[in-house]
Amino acid sequence: MVIVMGPEATGDNVASIVTVVRTAGVEAFVSKGVKRTIIGLVGDVTQLDSANLRGMPGVREVMRVSTPYKLVSRENHPERSTVHVGGVPIGPETVTLIAGPCAVETPEQTLLAARMAQAAGATLLRGGAFKPRTSPYAFQGLGERGLRILAEVREETGLPIVTEVVDANDVDLVASHADMLQVGTRNAQNFALLQAVGAAGRPVMLKRGMNATIEEWLMAAEYIAQRGNLDVVLCERGIRTFETATRNTLDVSAVPVAQRLSHLPVIVDPSHSGGRRDLVLPLTRAAIAVGADGVIIDVHPHPEQALCDGPQALVDTDLGELAQVMRDFPAMLGKSAALALS
Amino acid sequence: MVIVMGPEATGDNVASIVTVVRTAGVEAFVSKGVKRTIIGLVGDVTQLDSANLRGMPGVREVMRVSTPYKLVSRENHPERSTVHVGGVPIGPETVTLIAGPCAVETPEQTLLAARMAQAAGATLLRGGAFKPRTSPYAFQGLGERGLRILAEVREETGLPIVTEVVDANDVDLVASHADMLQVGTRNAQNFALLQAVGAAGRPVMLKRGMNATIEEWLMAAEYIAQRGNLDVVLCERGIRTFETATRNTLDVSAVPVAQRLSHLPVIVDPSHSGGRRDLVLPLTRAAIAVGADGVIIDVHPHPEQALCDGPQALVDTDLGELAQVMRDFPAMLGKSAALALS
Amino acid sequence: MVIVMGPEATGDNVASIVTVVRTAGVEAFVSKGVKRTIIGLVGDVTQLDSANLRGMPGVREVMRVSTPYKLVSRENHPERSTVHVGGVPIGPETVTLIAGPCAVETPEQTLLAARMAQAAGATLLRGGAFKPRTSPYAFQGLGERGLRILAEVREETGLPIVTEVVDANDVDLVASHADMLQVGTRNAQNFALLQAVGAAGRPVMLKRGMNATIEEWLMAAEYIAQRGNLDVVLCERGIRTFETATRNTLDVSAVPVAQRLSHLPVIVDPSHSGGRRDLVLPLTRAAIAVGADGVIIDVHPHPEQALCDGPQALVDTDLGELAQVMRDFPAMLGKSAALALS
Amino acid sequence: MVIVMGPEATGDNVASIVTVVRTAGVEAFVSKGVKRTIIGLVGDVTQLDSANLRGMPGVREVMRVSTPYKLVSRENHPERSTVHVGGVPIGPETVTLIAGPCAVETPEQTLLAARMAQAAGATLLRGGAFKPRTSPYAFQGLGERGLRILAEVREETGLPIVTEVVDANDVDLVASHADMLQVGTRNAQNFALLQAVGAAGRPVMLKRGMNATIEEWLMAAEYIAQRGNLDVVLCERGIRTFETATRNTLDVSAVPVAQRLSHLPVIVDPSHSGGRRDLVLPLTRAAIAVGADGVIIDVHPHPEQALCDGPQALVDTDLGELAQVMRDFPAMLGKSAALALS
Repeated sequence: MVIVMGPEATGDNVASIVTVVRTAGVEAFVSKGVKRTIIGLVGDVTQLDSANLRGMPGVREVMRVSTPYKLVSRENHPERSTVHVGGVPIGPETVTLIAGPCAVETPEQTLLAARMAQAAGATLLRGGAFKPRTSPYAFQGLGERGLRILAEVREETGLPIVTEVVDANDVDLVASHADMLQVGTRNAQNFALLQAVGAAGRPVMLKRGMNATIEEWLMAAEYIAQRGNLDVVLCERGIRTFETATRNTLDVSAVPVAQRLSHLPVIVDPSHSGGRRDLVLPLTRAAIAVGADGVIIDVHPHPEQALCDGPQALVDTDLGELAQVMRDFPAMLGKSAALALS
Repeated sequence: MVIVMGPEATGDNVASIVTVVRTAGVEAFVSKGVKRTIIGLVGDVTQLDSANLRGMPGVREVMRVSTPYKLVSRENHPERSTVHVGGVPIGPETVTLIAGPCAVETPEQTLLAARMAQAAGATLLRGGAFKPRTSPYAFQGLGERGLRILAEVREETGLPIVTEVVDANDVDLVASHADMLQVGTRNAQNFALLQAVGAAGRPVMLKRGMNATIEEWLMAAEYIAQRGNLDVVLCERGIRTFETATRNTLDVSAVPVAQRLSHLPVIVDPSHSGGRRDLVLPLTRAAIAVGADGVIIDVHPHPEQALCDGPQALVDTDLGELAQVMRDFPAMLGKSAALALS
Repeated sequence: MVIVMGPEATGDNVASIVTVVRTAGVEAFVSKGVKRTIIGLVGDVTQLDSANLRGMPGVREVMRVSTPYKLVSRENHPERSTVHVGGVPIGPETVTLIAGPCAVETPEQTLLAARMAQAAGATLLRGGAFKPRTSPYAFQGLGERGLRILAEVREETGLPIVTEVVDANDVDLVASHADMLQVGTRNAQNFALLQAVGAAGRPVMLKRGMNATIEEWLMAAEYIAQRGNLDVVLCERGIRTFETATRNTLDVSAVPVAQRLSHLPVIVDPSHSGGRRDLVLPLTRAAIAVGADGVIIDVHPHPEQALCDGPQALVDTDLGELAQVMRDFPAMLGKSAALALS
Repeated sequence: MVIVMGPEATGDNVASIVTVVRTAGVEAFVSKGVKRTIIGLVGDVTQLDSANLRGMPGVREVMRVSTPYKLVSRENHPERSTVHVGGVPIGPETVTLIAGPCAVETPEQTLLAARMAQAAGATLLRGGAFKPRTSPYAFQGLGERGLRILAEVREETGLPIVTEVVDANDVDLVASHADMLQVGTRNAQNFALLQAVGAAGRPVMLKRGMNATIEEWLMAAEYIAQRGNLDVVLCERGIRTFETATRNTLDVSAVPVAQRLSHLPVIVDPSHSGGRRDLVLPLTRAAIAVGADGVIIDVHPHPEQALCDGPQALVDTDLGELAQVMRDFPAMLGKSAALALS
């Protein structure tokens, strides 16, 4: 941490800061310039509140120079990690296709969607049993019945399951059926939920909050990691901007940035970011090309009847093109499509 | 709801839509223009998913024309509501000052802050026992011990308590000590928590999500209302924008806009939006002047030692000016400072 | 400027930077910590490109610690300035009401609007002869004929004129008729225009770019000042955010922040920020309460026939309330309504 | 256009609107529903101001249903266009690499950068002689001397030149040296400049305003087209969001969205959007993969000495990888790298 004093700062101001800092067990080095004084801090600064220091007399700026997340940081763990979900890898060597219906509606619809997913090359099945919806009057998912349908479809197809959990109280229930727990964008700073999934013994897919900086996203992952769970996959799904032509703005730059800052795998959701079927394939290509370790895509046998997010689901006639993208693009990046380990 | 067909839409496209709509029990009126056809829907459209309709062949646009929130809407409840918290009103006739420390740290600090709050004219005490923090390494609040300190300070000062709840599992505990439950900006779409506070039998202060549109904020309030709790106070606390000179951008326009759309009281948090002590008084004046029904302000006896958000807390020497604002400004709007009912 | 080296930086990396810095005539002080080295720069750093320094081997961060604007900064000019427009002050002692039609359409409409403005207490007349419009098919203003109408109305009413200039080639023409030149939000980084108005010998009202940080806004003012014109008034008019209920989001915090950073007066445009008539009066009150040195407001005798921005113009029946706000609110801030000097 | 009346609207309100609409030569069809009335407009609605209609009594909403841009719209021109710059195509069949130094500094640096560009496969040379800079104290480019250097380097290398114009008064001068005129992000709504380049008889590259919606971007292109110049290439270069890890947020979705709405070619600037060298190649791959018709990239022989934007310039050791991307990726999209026509 570096503290820059204003030109008006007195020697007493500097002395007070040094006292506060040393009281916290941190060393302070004072450099007096012609116009201003700079104090460099060395040691464990996690106990120092930079905002409070900023409020002390004479202080102009307080700048943090090391990352505030430790466990997910690449600083102490330079090699990128691979997370395994029911034997399927998500990591630097592969591009994993996760596909399925946005919401589980019926056993038939879920099985059909899973078959569509497999036809396109998916090795993990997504499907929502608990749906966080902006409106309390919208379809909120089938709940436990949806989890059982997913488990049956896994039985039938062999695809491990990724599904969302929206309530800390449901974590054990969801974990008893699912292979991977998803935390959605609206819960990206629901710290109680993050801690609960951290303790659940299942890999976690953590979507970026639609208003979260990359640093806040990594801090959310740190909450999970701190409970002993390092099997976390980050998922970029679009951020909120002024543009209204797309539901959100897919931030592809976040993929290489997050991969540089963290050892965790990073995947992309091209369905929810754009919110439009015609953008799913272009954004999938962009995601793989920018270096994503996987993509998660909505497919639906009858999107016009979907209870949730129908207009963004891929349909039968899109699958051939998606399969081709999954066949051709990973190799361009020196990766391969992710298969289940046998 | 109005459906606008594209110029390429066929008669069959129109017929399909009419079928879907009527199946949902909604009446459809078709107006054929020279270049395009428009379908007006009348009836209970809540079962129709506008996004799905938008995905049907030939559809150019689907436009909703009534509000998606019912219970908190002013359409069916033209008179603005007053919420009472331990006998203190928050509503159209008054400006309520809620003040206290951001976080409860010790009994002494909390009592001192409460006395500061009273000196400035506050009739409700704020103070956090459970703190949602971006970093898992930051001070997370004293928890239940903090609630007991708040209760003791209420005993001592007579000030009813407003405090945040961050986990649906803590709602009963917090409700057993607090007079009003606060839902914070990071939980503005934590629907499990919203439903839990809706059932807790206490008034709720609902902060706007830092990335929430006004409509999403009202939908979040609808989640609480739907559980039978209409004692909800909306709190504008700044939204996330590109500007970095302030922590968030206080959206004062949201106050009259929300008051026009909803009958619920609307207050403002000038401390967290600006994140700077020097902005608290100007923003407090602006909030009252724009028509807010109250303000919630951080005060701290020793902000340089605060465990959370010290730099934005008002200090002793600011109280006189705050008291004067509370004395002079409400009258300019035909309101009075809110006192406890005796 | 402070340069923070990464933990991997070598002694050679540090030496290279010191060489580059000293070559530019700036002194460098090196502080070696346990984990990293910090280099403080003292002297005229304007010739150093912080982005280039950031690109040098071993550099983690480069932080600027003094303001990049000199002439408009309050650092070297602690007293806040007053700008006079045709004898009417805009500055710290007063609240100036500028009002008139968004666009000059006819002599009758302009005169009627000017009379409305005076009835509400305005001492400066606004009115657009050159209108920057998003669509090339929209009404672009009457041009020179509009300027002549404004001059006639000034003759008739005594109100000095504020009008926009959108093209550097029109600056002399506009300056020959107007008392104050306005630079609009879309031209906030049109540096050719900024330099041209800087040389025109008239006071300038500089609207904040709808996407400009406060620092960029002050840098734009610096462009004008650098051409010898310090008679610049800053005008906050709303920034672009994700919220769609209002046209833009009025950033009231920007008023005290800009007043603290710069000695220039700061006013607010409540008409264009909200884009809705029903918000103009609440936002005017908020603007004065937060400390603005003036407001600029659209009025129109027949807004439903307006060629531009009719829905946000105040009408006859609003004037009494506006007059009352201008009478009562400035005094609350220790200011008075601005009158022309006699 | 569709006008939705509120439930409180009277028959007189509807009649007034019909009168206004028909006076403008537009036909109005009235559909009375149970709760509300809808008026559909057919004809040339460009003379009707939707905002004014919105302000009329009884009106709830006014919705535009056709695009406000005509000449650049794909509605009337379904086939995507190819723009030729000095014989080099930019369009749907190809991916064009434009590369060169951000700013022209010396003949040597410019020639070296041009050779680097060619080595990577570039067939057009970029280079700035007029630089729009946030600070008036920053290097503003060599001006006319820079143009002459560019012309000499074109002579030497055969690469046609793309260069920015920032002032309507410089358009003729720049057009006399350059093969393509660039309008930068800060001038995206400088309508005087757009009209001047529209009349200059050269192809234009129009960068998206960093705060422009896709619709506003297309409207800016319409300003150019309206002056008779349809040789316009759109360039996505990142938008301003809350994220600070990258200079701007590259909006890759804007590429397919703009290509669907407009027949104009769309390219991407991966250098300025990310602002970081390490992101240029990943974002270039993403741009081509999403379907961009070209990319424009900064290269510099000595970026640490660059007078502008050094840290984002590719260096010698990056060129092999860029060349490989240009060789391999276009084919994945059924495109080829663009060569000059012989």
